[in-house]
Amino acid sequence: MPETIDVKQRILAANEAAAKLLRGRAEANGTLVTNLISSPGSGKTTLLEATVRTLASRLRVAVIEGDIATERDAERLRALGVPAHQILTGGACHLDARQVDAALQLAAFPLVDLLFIENVGNLICPTSYDLGEDFKVVLLSVTEGEDKPFKYPAIFAKAAVTVITKSDLLPHVTFDLDAVRRQVASLNPDGRLLVTSARSGDGIGDWCGLLEERLAAKRSART
Amino acid sequence: MPETIDVKQRILAANEAAAKLLRGRAEANGTLVTNLISSPGSGKTTLLEATVRTLASRLRVAVIEGDIATERDAERLRALGVPAHQILTGGACHLDARQVDAALQLAAFPLVDLLFIENVGNLICPTSYDLGEDFKVVLLSVTEGEDKPFKYPAIFAKAAVTVITKSDLLPHVTFDLDAVRRQVASLNPDGRLLVTSARSGDGIGDWCGLLEERLAAKRSART
Repeated sequence: MPETIDVKQRILAANEAAAKLLRGRAEANGTLVTNLISSPGSGKTTLLEATVRTLASRLRVAVIEGDIATERDAERLRALGVPAHQILTGGACHLDARQVDAALQLAAFPLVDLLFIENVGNLICPTSYDLGEDFKVVLLSVTEGEDKPFKYPAIFAKAAVTVITKSDLLPHVTFDLDAVRRQVASLNPDGRLLVTSARSGDGIGDWCGLLEERLAAKRSART
Repeated sequence: MPETIDVKQRILAANEAAAKLLRGRAEANGTLVTNLISSPGSGKTTLLEATVRTLASRLRVAVIEGDIATERDAERLRALGVPAHQILTGGACHLDARQVDAALQLAAFPLVDLLFIENVGNLICPTSYDLGEDFKVVLLSVTEGEDKPFKYPAIFAKAAVTVITKSDLLPHVTFDLDAVRRQVASLNPDGRLLVTSARSGDGIGDWCGLLEERLAAKRSART
């Protein structure tokens, strides 16, 4: 069915054009943009809550949330005083750059230091769509099993950072952290891997430190 | 982009035609076909392993596995002596009926009582594709959070059975089971909900009993 391929290529080309504009604007503003991707329930919103609690006193943070339905995730971030805009995709399994552009125009965020885009819960579809981010982050919770990087290789190869979440549950599950490290290293030799628990606080400081380093590096590269 | 919609409608129409053929063949064979759908890591393969251990002595079971990459899930089932065929979708986020038809021709399974199709790990894309199954089952692990039915309503509305998995982890996580029951009941008043743990065995008997009842009902409706 060659029309399918043509349509997909046209959609991706339109997305690339929108992503380029978004990236240029973030560069001009000195904003670090992070695209968070994972299965449903891996803890993206919970990681953002912990990030906001740690960094909001010294950095301006805003969030764009992508979901099939409900404003729940945006409400959780707003409850912490963070401007958050919810994109509802209807049935679509990922965000695209034009939705992010439209959301940024509606949200009228002031210039922020860190803009997080929490993608729709899905390890597959969001992989192909550039949202103008500085880097992608993939989350994997320790309850999901250690076979996931090789089973969903594209996102683990593309994400600059892999965040293992819910490490407080390690005593209660079978999860071979070394096997995950080896898979991620083989798919993505330059990637970083962090082990975190939003509940215990483990690794949250490293994650926030990484964000601050990348923000500083982006700004120093501009000057 | 109206071409996108036309192409999608053509794809779904072709899928429906293939699903109808599959359903007719399963009916003629007296095989109960179950389409298992969940996020990555919710425990589909682990539930199938527990099912096989319980039922394989009295029923003939076969499995079709769908994944982006790797034969791991099929190998886990084969290790239990069950014929299992792995479909590798490349990048695609769901199985379609034509892939299942091709797999059944390649797999050359003998006539079986229970055919399980384990879909690609994804709560969204598999929802729209009929695979000729008797019913869809959605799995939700207690580590994924109790907000998922309303956030991913289509699959919870369509699945005849919701299987809550990993109930042995309930003491270690925040998960409001009653809230999940209410959401599922509101989306799907006729649906069944089972609470299971493959590790402790809780609820596995109920799940296997449900499969045996549905198989018996299907066969008695034919005669």
